Amino acid sequence: MKELEDRIRQEGVILSDTVLKVDSFLNHQVDTELALSIGREFGRLFADRGITKVLTIEASGIQFAMAAGIALKVPFVYAKKKKAVTLAEQVYSASVHSFTRQETYQVSLSRNYLGPNDRVLIVDDFLATGAALVGLVQIVREAGAELAGVGCVIEKGFQEGRRLLEDMGVHVHSLARISSMAPGEIHFVDNDAPIHVKEKV
Amino acid sequence: MKELEDRIRQEGVILSDTVLKVDSFLNHQVDTELALSIGREFGRLFADRGITKVLTIEASGIQFAMAAGIALKVPFVYAKKKKAVTLAEQVYSASVHSFTRQETYQVSLSRNYLGPNDRVLIVDDFLATGAALVGLVQIVREAGAELAGVGCVIEKGFQEGRRLLEDMGVHVHSLARISSMAPGEIHFVDNDAPIHVKEKV
Repeated sequence: MKELEDRIRQEGVILSDTVLKVDSFLNHQVDTELALSIGREFGRLFADRGITKVLTIEASGIQFAMAAGIALKVPFVYAKKKKAVTLAEQVYSASVHSFTRQETYQVSLSRNYLGPNDRVLIVDDFLATGAALVGLVQIVREAGAELAGVGCVIEKGFQEGRRLLEDMGVHVHSLARISSMAPGEIHFVDNDAPIHVKEKV
Repeated sequence: MKELEDRIRQEGVILSDTVLKVDSFLNHQVDTELALSIGREFGRLFADRGITKVLTIEASGIQFAMAAGIALKVPFVYAKKKKAVTLAEQVYSASVHSFTRQETYQVSLSRNYLGPNDRVLIVDDFLATGAALVGLVQIVREAGAELAGVGCVIEKGFQEGRRLLEDMGVHVHSLARISSMAPGEIHFVDNDAPIHVKEKV
């Protein structure tokens, strides 16, 4: 998705060979128009898949699940990272290890909001190690729902997430696939000329 | 907002005199069309206030901040509840005590995304004790930004949140104001006939 790759080149900040900060427009401050464009792109890619529900995980997946839900005219659900007092009913759950935060947390989703009649599109902001997305795939399978695929905004193609998901038989579509990066430059799959971006500030 | 009050009557589940579950359509599963309507209503209420940015807190405020940002054609930002590895720069911060979770957490927002030139609309899903919203007001003031007001989707008018915010000189607008509730019935401000809703399931 060219509009997205352009914004990553213009505003992304590469902190190391693995950490890309996009919090000026995607996951802290959010450009609502860009988020809607991202949702329309997911909508276009999965238009003929009979999606009934978009699934994501709090927090930074919510804006893209909402945008995809708008485009596909379906509700979205977000898995929670901690069991809340008001979430006392039976839940689907999976364990997820966050390499960014170096902690393991439980992801849960009410059984009321996903079931065998659903066709699900999973959406998230980043695909890197794939840990959170594997947890969401497990939840979809536990629910007996059909998984149409995983849509990611940005994929770090040099990490193992895509392989893990594809080994589970999951179709993965990322809107911007980074093949490699280092402070000062970033390469996208299908567009591999090095482009200089801002260094760590 | 009649559409919202109707949905609360139809689908809200009252667990006690203070706990209302709306997670089938607002904050776990999200009806994207309703969320967009809520955003349009915030947009209408604050249309002439020169808003430059919508501010909320992760996670369940995000869908409504996004909807308000869409309606007002401005970006939104969400304060985070935990300092992440990729959020190393200087932040505005405030302490918030969650009565639901019985814990105190730090709310933080990058200084890059709010400043003296901003006119801010704060949005959240619930106004109850007001703790999270008071924290967001403190962040807006620390940033030197102008606060146009607070927009809440549902207000529990029998809790102290509105008074706390109004004592700080903040304009509060809630789309559904509950004056009282108990398992089996709910009363809204301006529409005080008791209406029977689903009891705890």
